[in-house]
Amino acid sequence: MVVAGMREEPGVMSADILRALSAPNTVALIGASDTPGRLTARPLTFMQKNAFQGRIYPVNPGRDTVMGLRAFASVRDIPEPVDMAYILLNTEPAIAALEECAAAGVKVVAMLADGFAEAGEEGQVRQRRVAEIAKAAGILLIGPNSMGVVNTANGFVCTSNAAFGTDFLPKGRLAVLSQSGSVIGTLVSRGAERGIGYSLLVSLGNEAATGIGALGEVLLDHADTDGYLLFMETIRDPEALANFARGAAERGKPVVAYMIGQSEEGQALSVSHTGALTGSSRAVSAFLAGIGIRQVQTFETLIEAPAALSRLGAKMHGRPRQVTVMSTTGGGGAMVLDQISARGVAIAGASETARATLGAAGIPAGHGKLVDVTLAGAKYETMKKTVSTLIADPETGLLVVAIGSSAQFNPELAVRPIIDAVAEAGPDAAPVVAFPLPHAPESMRLLEAGGVPTFRTVETCAETVAMLMTEKSCVANPAPELPAKTRAAIDAAPSGVLDEVDAGRICASLGISGPRQMLLAPGQEISEDLNLGWPLVAKLVSPDLPHKTDAGAIRVGISNHDDLVTAVAAMRASAEAYHPGYRLKGILIQEMCSGLGEVLVGLTRDPLVGPVLTVAAGGVMTEIYRDSAVRPAPVSLPEAQEMLAEVKGLALLRGFRGRPEGDLAGLADLIVKVSTLANDPRIEEVEINPVLVREKGASVVMLDALIRRG
Amino acid sequence: MVVAGMREEPGVMSADILRALSAPNTVALIGASDTPGRLTARPLTFMQKNAFQGRIYPVNPGRDTVMGLRAFASVRDIPEPVDMAYILLNTEPAIAALEECAAAGVKVVAMLADGFAEAGEEGQVRQRRVAEIAKAAGILLIGPNSMGVVNTANGFVCTSNAAFGTDFLPKGRLAVLSQSGSVIGTLVSRGAERGIGYSLLVSLGNEAATGIGALGEVLLDHADTDGYLLFMETIRDPEALANFARGAAERGKPVVAYMIGQSEEGQALSVSHTGALTGSSRAVSAFLAGIGIRQVQTFETLIEAPAALSRLGAKMHGRPRQVTVMSTTGGGGAMVLDQISARGVAIAGASETARATLGAAGIPAGHGKLVDVTLAGAKYETMKKTVSTLIADPETGLLVVAIGSSAQFNPELAVRPIIDAVAEAGPDAAPVVAFPLPHAPESMRLLEAGGVPTFRTVETCAETVAMLMTEKSCVANPAPELPAKTRAAIDAAPSGVLDEVDAGRICASLGISGPRQMLLAPGQEISEDLNLGWPLVAKLVSPDLPHKTDAGAIRVGISNHDDLVTAVAAMRASAEAYHPGYRLKGILIQEMCSGLGEVLVGLTRDPLVGPVLTVAAGGVMTEIYRDSAVRPAPVSLPEAQEMLAEVKGLALLRGFRGRPEGDLAGLADLIVKVSTLANDPRIEEVEINPVLVREKGASVVMLDALIRRG
Repeated sequence: MVVAGMREEPGVMSADILRALSAPNTVALIGASDTPGRLTARPLTFMQKNAFQGRIYPVNPGRDTVMGLRAFASVRDIPEPVDMAYILLNTEPAIAALEECAAAGVKVVAMLADGFAEAGEEGQVRQRRVAEIAKAAGILLIGPNSMGVVNTANGFVCTSNAAFGTDFLPKGRLAVLSQSGSVIGTLVSRGAERGIGYSLLVSLGNEAATGIGALGEVLLDHADTDGYLLFMETIRDPEALANFARGAAERGKPVVAYMIGQSEEGQALSVSHTGALTGSSRAVSAFLAGIGIRQVQTFETLIEAPAALSRLGAKMHGRPRQVTVMSTTGGGGAMVLDQISARGVAIAGASETARATLGAAGIPAGHGKLVDVTLAGAKYETMKKTVSTLIADPETGLLVVAIGSSAQFNPELAVRPIIDAVAEAGPDAAPVVAFPLPHAPESMRLLEAGGVPTFRTVETCAETVAMLMTEKSCVANPAPELPAKTRAAIDAAPSGVLDEVDAGRICASLGISGPRQMLLAPGQEISEDLNLGWPLVAKLVSPDLPHKTDAGAIRVGISNHDDLVTAVAAMRASAEAYHPGYRLKGILIQEMCSGLGEVLVGLTRDPLVGPVLTVAAGGVMTEIYRDSAVRPAPVSLPEAQEMLAEVKGLALLRGFRGRPEGDLAGLADLIVKVSTLANDPRIEEVEINPVLVREKGASVVMLDALIRRG
Repeated sequence: MVVAGMREEPGVMSADILRALSAPNTVALIGASDTPGRLTARPLTFMQKNAFQGRIYPVNPGRDTVMGLRAFASVRDIPEPVDMAYILLNTEPAIAALEECAAAGVKVVAMLADGFAEAGEEGQVRQRRVAEIAKAAGILLIGPNSMGVVNTANGFVCTSNAAFGTDFLPKGRLAVLSQSGSVIGTLVSRGAERGIGYSLLVSLGNEAATGIGALGEVLLDHADTDGYLLFMETIRDPEALANFARGAAERGKPVVAYMIGQSEEGQALSVSHTGALTGSSRAVSAFLAGIGIRQVQTFETLIEAPAALSRLGAKMHGRPRQVTVMSTTGGGGAMVLDQISARGVAIAGASETARATLGAAGIPAGHGKLVDVTLAGAKYETMKKTVSTLIADPETGLLVVAIGSSAQFNPELAVRPIIDAVAEAGPDAAPVVAFPLPHAPESMRLLEAGGVPTFRTVETCAETVAMLMTEKSCVANPAPELPAKTRAAIDAAPSGVLDEVDAGRICASLGISGPRQMLLAPGQEISEDLNLGWPLVAKLVSPDLPHKTDAGAIRVGISNHDDLVTAVAAMRASAEAYHPGYRLKGILIQEMCSGLGEVLVGLTRDPLVGPVLTVAAGGVMTEIYRDSAVRPAPVSLPEAQEMLAEVKGLALLRGFRGRPEGDLAGLADLIVKVSTLANDPRIEEVEINPVLVREKGASVVMLDALIRRG
């Protein structure tokens, strides 16, 4: 577990910090206002309204009391140790108050002020300063730009977000970690309307010292929390996030994330708005998927999916990965089935056995894959028999019930029988989710109370069902380490963009082979017998000629010795004209190879999530269709194989329309090897382009490699 | 206007039918039950509950009265002319009742019964029968499988859908036309929760005689209707739908459609569920777009978009096609902006002028493109000044306001100032829409009443904004007619798949040229001087050799006379071995051509929407990436150019990375010409594949053409 400034024994420390954060005995409100309704008066108002039982100490040097409580001039004047402080002052006074908290030994501090990383260079200096103060003092710092911390279970509603002035703050078993302070209010408000509550809500703000991952680690063993919702604009601590995700998976607690940045404008905004970095949205999605965090596409799914996942996730183990949809309404059922299928989920109709059982009970199961009981009617006995039969069927992976108009005013007809069938089902019964077509809040409450997750929109239902159907593995496939001889080759290479010889040496050390070749010294005579097969390719090796074609420093298809001699002389003349005084390191002569297709394998370092491997179809297809697969690097062999299956253009190498198959095994092996270079931080970028793929069994050949070394 | 069975003067007839459908003076309920709560008792119950003022006549031969009204044995016994009848009987008795309605001169009949097109061959026979009865009698028939007709304005709630038992049936100015009966209930229920009501709702069922288009035409001049919502599982009357869409556009009434069939499973279901045909979802989308119907992606957008479109659509004319997003909440505003931008909408920040005005008022407009007044705070004066400034700015196309937590409990802070700014704005002010982040029904009601459309989800907001930004033209570009000589060439051709010669003749008549070529008769000697340039391609022309390559009946790259003679002899021997006794019509000899790229141009007839033109990148790219553009055929020149711009792979012909540009003008011309073949119903399918595209100005060449003639 990594938390900024932790110096004590982690386990004990962690439990103590968790308690101070979520259930403090003593809370200081620094800069609390005595004027009701003001932003800085809200935390105290909300805690009093929610009957928080801890001791609250307002800190306000200008007053004797604040809302009836004795006020202190400084946090250092408070007569007992302070677990948690929320600093409500503006930028500079807030920094001074943090220093006082450090001196007073406060364990957790949240800061409201802005004027930090989002406010230019000066602000960035301030942000580093508060991070250092917190680190030195061992404080868990939330913010700055934080709207605070809320625990619904004990009335610790320590937030400046107006939404918490609500009379109805539902409790729940899901924790919210949000980089946006306003969104914790949105979630509470919209969740309440859906009957969904949260255990803890934390507004992380600028994450000067505590990122979403580090905070998640602190909350892993929070007893009241069964799952986590993340609202993210950026990722500042990818390693901690991975540790948190792993810990959550081990505990069977799902982690669901919504991330801004689907569009370029959205990404640009993240920079201007919170001073955050942005990465490529594909790299981020690959990273989240790789560490087992479920990324949702719509905000409503962030509200509805986590409860369903935490409730049904464990029951899905070992079940068939197919969904059965039943309905009391033809059109509505068809809409639900259509949306689920459109997300790539396999749909099963009623099995032969189930169909026979229903037939014997006089219930026609409808035509096609939708189990439609419209004809039998929305009646208690029909519904119960149908649900019972389908969930008892081992071929049912998950049952989705689309409930028609009766759900609004007559839950006894089609809602109650679902609940009763689920209650009476055996332990191996398939899980059930339900979607009422009409606005039917009461039926939704009944179903949720009966253990049946429900959804407000068909799209949210379909997206969540697709998540339930995709098992997340938290066991990473082992990715190989970088061999010692490769480290040695990197040691020996200069920094900057490496030439063919240095890049080739690093690749060779990994067992990645190029074409048969030889390097002639600049003055060396060209022998008649080169021991290479014609035709050949010749290139000048020079740090001054990065664009060989433009410089005329490459010739292909050379078919005899005379042509080779002529070609080398012509290239040297051309290069001298192109870049007078260019440095010639040698002349590289390679056998020309042909194959079935070309592939690009690249390693880059994403500013948010670090090393990322990209595999793409070669040539113009990559650029025009953006046809590629992306994973955090290094990758294991199964991951490399998965990537090859994802790239559409590689169909040409998979035996498309009777074509010969390419050596995908060799290609996967090369991908794994390239990806291990991620383990050496000096390797900033690698692009093997093209990799020539020959027929199955005939291996692959690296034709060109670019490596940038830091 | 096309309505089944109309024989009188259309204008008068139409107005009379519209009145009988929406505001009948007399209604017969055939098979009405006297037992409250039963399905067949509902229409009477609902009409009484909603104080319908027309005269209701229950028809039930087993009873003297039904729910206190005198019952009649037959519709023919009713003592005055009947405007509208709803037949609630089962299949066979329902058909008999329809015959009685015909005899009694009823104008509009809805039928509830199932057992028609969805019930196999017997059902299809029944469906044809009811259609014929209606046609012969001039009845506007709704159904069978119809849940009825509802007019919220006059209490004519003539439906068997349980959802209409609601105590709160909001009125509105949008009509619903649904092929699913349950969905009219869903829309009423979900709409009511959003404060959205409808003028009319019609459940069309199987559309035996009246499709969604034909009914739409009847409703075009309904005075209480400003726009239309369509819920569709199929399209049965594409021409009427196009007429309806055109009529609606002329009247400035938007038409918004949700259509099931995003997935193959969803499409298959449409067949099994209502006996409907399915077409390709791309062909259907292209058709809807082509006739100016807005197709929504999510069901919630079907609920929220139409009101916004009917309210703001006209105000968008001539405004810049860019959106300005302002917010009182950084994270929430960023989420909205991100989703709008992800749908391809251009985002503008505050203009220099607006920024200066706001700055002078002490309101910082935030960083980047989001106009974020979080720092200035959600205060009345700040909000009003910002909204007023932005909507007065001619550079603002549309203003989207994302309102934070205050919208839930304090509309006076950020909601009221929006309404006041809009009320005080000049006639040229930019339109405004709003999205409250929290659950804020009261604020949404205030905003809607103030002329500001609102949205419940960020995705629905973004989808609707994208629709507002895309102007729909209802003026179709004229597509050329089929030339007389082409009709003559089609007359002369046999039916079935045409050979090169017949297909080539049809193409030539359109001015589509193939390579230079000549056709030798089977016994003709091959002259030394063919007047063609080498190399050549030679093919056997035969109705018995559809797969030339397999039969060895094509040779390419023939470079001299001797090789040509040898090649022809070899092809004939090979063909004889492949298909003994094959009929040889001739030997086609063509110049070999080369160019920059290949394209596929195809014309097919979609089972739902009729002739459809497809343009795709040639070769494997088409198949692997499904990279194509689709339009209803015939297409105009501007449409053809639009299609070429849509196909990604054609970047290679648009000068991608310094490549030479292809002759896209020639290609667009060819596309238009091929598409005109849609005008001859005998042409069932055309595929010009490949079309060879040469350099700009060097024209295009049809290398192979397949035409199937009916």
